[in-house]
Formats: sequence, C-alpha cells, structure tokens
Amino acid sequence: MHKVIFDTDPGVDDAMALLFLHNHPEIDLIGITTVFGNAAIETTTRNALFLKREWGIAAPVARGEGKTYNPMRNPTDWPVMIHGHDGLGNIDVPEAIDLPVDPRPAHRFIIETVRANPGEVTLIAVGRMSNLAYALKEDPEIAGLVRQVIIMGGAFDVPGNITPAAEANIHGDPEAADAVMTAPWKVVVVGLDVTMKTVMTRRRLAELTAQNGRSLKLLSAVSQFYIDFYGRHVEGEGMVVHDSCACIYLVAPELFETRSGAIRVVCGGIADGQTIQKPDARSFPPGNWDGLPSQHACIGIDAEKVMALLDETLVR
Amino acid sequence: MHKVIFDTDPGVDDAMALLFLHNHPEIDLIGITTVFGNAAIETTTRNALFLKREWGIAAPVARGEGKTYNPMRNPTDWPVMIHGHDGLGNIDVPEAIDLPVDPRPAHRFIIETVRANPGEVTLIAVGRMSNLAYALKEDPEIAGLVRQVIIMGGAFDVPGNITPAAEANIHGDPEAADAVMTAPWKVVVVGLDVTMKTVMTRRRLAELTAQNGRSLKLLSAVSQFYIDFYGRHVEGEGMVVHDSCACIYLVAPELFETRSGAIRVVCGGIADGQTIQKPDARSFPPGNWDGLPSQHACIGIDAEKVMALLDETLVR
Repeated sequence: MHKVIFDTDPGVDDAMALLFLHNHPEIDLIGITTVFGNAAIETTTRNALFLKREWGIAAPVARGEGKTYNPMRNPTDWPVMIHGHDGLGNIDVPEAIDLPVDPRPAHRFIIETVRANPGEVTLIAVGRMSNLAYALKEDPEIAGLVRQVIIMGGAFDVPGNITPAAEANIHGDPEAADAVMTAPWKVVVVGLDVTMKTVMTRRRLAELTAQNGRSLKLLSAVSQFYIDFYGRHVEGEGMVVHDSCACIYLVAPELFETRSGAIRVVCGGIADGQTIQKPDARSFPPGNWDGLPSQHACIGIDAEKVMALLDETLVR
Repeated sequence: MHKVIFDTDPGVDDAMALLFLHNHPEIDLIGITTVFGNAAIETTTRNALFLKREWGIAAPVARGEGKTYNPMRNPTDWPVMIHGHDGLGNIDVPEAIDLPVDPRPAHRFIIETVRANPGEVTLIAVGRMSNLAYALKEDPEIAGLVRQVIIMGGAFDVPGNITPAAEANIHGDPEAADAVMTAPWKVVVVGLDVTMKTVMTRRRLAELTAQNGRSLKLLSAVSQFYIDFYGRHVEGEGMVVHDSCACIYLVAPELFETRSGAIRVVCGGIADGQTIQKPDARSFPPGNWDGLPSQHACIGIDAEKVMALLDETLVR
C-alpha cells in the first residue's frame, strides 16, 4: 500500500485525481492538504471538504497558509474561466461544509504525518508548491523521511501554459518550487511534457458515468465547465487530466519515461516560474545547477495505458 | 545573388561557414564584420583578415566594438578549449596580417551598407548579437531595409550548451540578442535544436581535403583542435557545424522546418541568455511576448541534405 498525502487546490482536474486516489486499491490516502491556485485557499479547502463528504473519503483535510513562499509576490487572479467561480465548475458548491478541518496548518500536518511514518509517505502535490516549501523550511529533516515527492507542474521541452516559459502551478510560487526541486529528497516532476497527451473526452466521461453511480455523476458535473474551456484547445473535445497523471505515476511509473538531472526554477524576469533541468547525461561549465540532487523529469508517457488505468480506477 | 554581410567571431566553425559563403555561386559576400565571443575582438578581427588573405576573399573586414550591449555585463573567459588560444585551433596564426581594416566600426559598416542596398542585404550573424544591436540602436530604420537576419544561436526545445538554459552566442550578450529578436525585421534563428544534428566527421573532412587544394587544407588544419574537443561528445568523431547551418539556410531554407512566433531573450537570473518563443499557434494570457514581430525558430532540419550541400560547396 502506498501511503499518500495529497496536496491539492480543487480544482476540477484535482477532483478527478482525488477520486483516483480514493478508489485505487493500492493507495492509502492518509491526508489531504489544501493550497491556493485554482482558487483562493478558502475555496479550495471548502471544495476538499465537499468532495470528502460526497465521496466518503476518510482522510483528514488540513488547510494551507494561502500565501506564497516569497511574501513579496503579488497574488494573481484566480483562473475562474477554467475552474469556475467556485473552483469546481460552477456547480453551486454549498458555501460551508459541516465537516471539521484538521487543527494543524497544512505544512505542520505534512511534517507530523511524515515523522509518524518515516520512509513511507509519498507527497503528491498538484497545486502550487507553497505547503511543501513551508514544511521543508520548518523541518528540513523531513526531506530524508519522505518516500518520494510527485509533482504535477512544470514544462521542460515544451512551452508553458501561463506564459511561453512557465506552467501555472510552478509560476504561482516559483521560490517554493525551487526549494522543493533542490531539496535532498526524490522528486518526480510530471509536467506538461507528458500531461498534455492525456485527454478525457466528454464522451468517454459520459460512458464511464453510465457505468458507475454517484461518484462519477458528481465528477462529470464538476468537469463540464472545464471541458467547455479546454474543448476549444483539445482534440476530441475533452479535458487534459494533468493532476491524475501525477497520481498514476505512483502506481504505474513504468508508463512514464523520465530524465534525471538537477532541476531549478527561474525566479523573476520574463521566464519567471520556468522549470529548467540539467540532464545528468550532459556536461556544462560550472553553474547554478551544480551540487544539487538529481531529480526526475517525465519526458515520455504511454498515454493510452495511462488513460485506461484512469478509466478503470474511476469506475471502481 | 544573395548579398550577405557575415557577422562573425572566427572561430573554427566560423571559418568553415566563411569558406561556404565565399565558395557558393549564389552568394555575394559584401562584408565581414567581426564580433568577440570565440575569442577577443583583436583576435577575431586578425583571424578574419587572415582567412580573407589566405582564401582571397574580396569583402572588406570591419571590426566590432568588442563590448556587450549592456555595459554592466562582465566579460567572460574565452573558450580556448574549443577554438584554441588563437581562436583558430592553435595553428600559429601570424600575429599581424598586412591587410587594411575598414575604417568604420562594424555597426556603422552594417548601417551604411544596408542603406546603400535597400531591401537586398541579408545579415548572417554567428557570434554575439552585439554589432547588430548597436546598428539598430544607432539607426532603427535599417530594420525596414534589411532583407532578413539569419542567426546562429539559441536553443528552444533542447538544452543550451553554456548553461542548461542558454546557448553561448546568445548568453554572451543577452540584451543585444533581445533587441535583435524583437526588432521589426525578419529574423530566422538557427539554434541548437537543429545545428547539433549536423556533424562533419574528421574522416569526411579529410576526404574533402583530398579533393580540393589549399582552401580546405587550411580549413582542415584549423578544425583539428575543435574536433579533438567535440569528438568526445559527438557520434562519429566530428565537429558540429553550427555556423555553416545559418549560411545554408540562406540558400536552402527548404531543408529546415521553422516555427513562427515572437522570441524573447531572458536577461539575468539562472536562465540568463535563454531564447524563449511564444508559438503563434498557442495562446497565453497577456504577457511579455505580446505585440512583437513573429520570428522564425528552426526546429527541424534535413541534416543529411544540409551536410551534402556543405560538402559540395566547400570543395568547389
């Protein structure tokens, strides 16, 4: 069983990834930590509680700080055109959910849970890297106690999505992401190089929903607005399942091709938030990537098998 | 006939490109302007004069300023391990060459030559972009009078060579390169995405030298040191013919696949000198690439045909 803390900003594709984690028989979801990004922290936390209630998820929800690692960064607008004003596709999520939030802030929840399960916890982070960076800052030793960190974010050999250089999760808190990428733990980065190849069409989602009851009905409702947005850009009218890819990597890493090498994140300037890897197979003059741990960037994916595994797990 | 000003820092692969320009029947080389990069400006200018004399090239040589566009940039060490202490593979180039240098500085030579031949001149720049940026600054109207600018430099969908982010020519004067890329003239960027696929093996160069007399004998001598360096990294023991690729684009653009979109150069930070394109086919939120001319990044090459054309032209 893979013990997982899911750091998330639900968020439509977050919701799908959460259902995948909840349904997969080899995954033990032991915590949900919320971060801002797809919406404000109040909204993403409320949404996590809503999905927890609707889907009967046992894991506690701990709320993140809702601010960037570098306090000088200005907050940006939320991507309401993608995730809706409620962060879940404008389905009229109730304003308040009658479930308790864990008393600890997200980064403290991460620290204590990792220390209680040394060597066993995988962190899957699919929003901004803020919570992970705060956790590392408060307790750097957790780097040696985490099993692995799997990130949805970044773009290596392809353009970004929020700027030509940067992907939105990393761009939303570049200093946090640089701290996470350069810490001495194993990081696997599942970025746009591979996620853009994984599309759930509207039709396929309807077929899956017909096979399953309430869980997929909610997921399908949540996803329509996002598909309305992405449908214009994606072949076959569908949604790119970014966040699910990171979860699928955990149970089926053989479906991904990775490249090893130190990873840095650009902070400031026109390339703000860009992820840049120094491939281990290449040599360069002395520079900013030296002496850092070698991390793992996903550069290839068997998208067909990834989508089959997603389908199969969502309908369980 | 293509009228060409060759802006160059010879430099070993510069020498090969110069011989290509000199030999090609459809190219009228009307000027050589020197820039620093592969060696100091004194050395690259001396080398241009040396090659002009040895190969009987008629075009005048005008010397560049030998300083970066942004005066706050610190000079770096010259890549003597690649081009040798004399910039031409340690072949003991004479200290002084008894030929006159054009009285005008390179950027002034470019301005006056372009104005004397409106709409006709192609600038092929294979060193740092300093001279072109100085020319644009002094006389912005030349942008509308140049036929096209072909640059060897940059790396779009592949790692750089001087850092994981940046290619050496652009990294050597990023502010100049950004000025050149964003000016209202047609720029074609022939960067590492394609040049790394073009290799002249030591064996092939020897075969060509056997077919031709003095010109290739000198080129072969100049190139051995560079091949000694690159041979360790390149399949088949050879030299990557970066600069020749830019010249070949001029006469055989059909051998290249290009992608259109605004191009910016990162100035400062860990990605200093990186080239980033906003592909016209992609949309992004408002940002730093907006309202700029669409330029042309080479992303594919028919390397076999490019090398065949190079071979054929060098032995003419």
